[in-house]
Amino acid sequence: MRILGIDPGFATIGFGVIDAEKGRAVAVDYGTIKTPKELSFPDRLIMIEKGVTELISTYHPDQAALEELFFNTNITTGINVAHARGVILLVLAKQLGGKLFEYTPLQIKQALTGYGRADKQQIMQMVKTFLRLDKIPRPDDAADALAVALCHSQTNRLGGLFSI
Amino acid sequence: MRILGIDPGFATIGFGVIDAEKGRAVAVDYGTIKTPKELSFPDRLIMIEKGVTELISTYHPDQAALEELFFNTNITTGINVAHARGVILLVLAKQLGGKLFEYTPLQIKQALTGYGRADKQQIMQMVKTFLRLDKIPRPDDAADALAVALCHSQTNRLGGLFSI
Repeated sequence: MRILGIDPGFATIGFGVIDAEKGRAVAVDYGTIKTPKELSFPDRLIMIEKGVTELISTYHPDQAALEELFFNTNITTGINVAHARGVILLVLAKQLGGKLFEYTPLQIKQALTGYGRADKQQIMQMVKTFLRLDKIPRPDDAADALAVALCHSQTNRLGGLFSI
Repeated sequence: MRILGIDPGFATIGFGVIDAEKGRAVAVDYGTIKTPKELSFPDRLIMIEKGVTELISTYHPDQAALEELFFNTNITTGINVAHARGVILLVLAKQLGGKLFEYTPLQIKQALTGYGRADKQQIMQMVKTFLRLDKIPRPDDAADALAVALCHSQTNRLGGLFSI
């Protein structure tokens, strides 16, 4: 099963594509979609729509997983990330139907390390280990996207099915 | 000039279409797009994309105006409104290019009543008066959408041009 993991953002969107079968997973590709700050915000949303559409047409994932959004102290950035995440959800929902899952940061930590207090570095190490990579994937946005894809492959259940 | 005003939401999106020339404005139509709560959230985003696309193909607005998002105490609702607003921005940006404007609640109050402390009822009365309607438009989402469209016609400047 091919899983597309997405780390939502509006300046940088991380993506990670893995093939997962019977508890083993390999990285197909990972990287980022970037939108230049010189563009208007609506034009950046158009770029994000195109970028995610291209990811799907390039890698043909069976399912997609993305992290739930929590707001930090910067509410303005948070609102814009939420705008971008809405566009990402729209594209994934249109292209992949209901095969769209979301996980909280706690679920991702628990799936990858077995406990909920792992720090970012431990998560990154587990991404490297699970995918048998030579080093931790860079940038962080791509590693985060691989982490949510791995979380989905590890949990392999419908608990993360997107709902409201 | 035909202006499409939008009051963003994910369960109910208000819209108001006005024709504005030389300080006079008439209401062309107003109402709401509703998405059923039985649908998954991503499917509601697909409905919103379709609904806003249909508004544009029906009314052919020259420009669009929408209210800036501020978060109230319900952060979960706020995140979902922001997701939906991202989809609305995407559709408007694709269909209307750069002719997309946003206004703060304060700007809308000042444009319609001349001062920033007007209450909701005063805003609604001014919408009725400006558009020479028999009564205040219902529901509130539609009246709010007409208010932001009127704000754009009143200010008639580029200060509200969407940017980040």
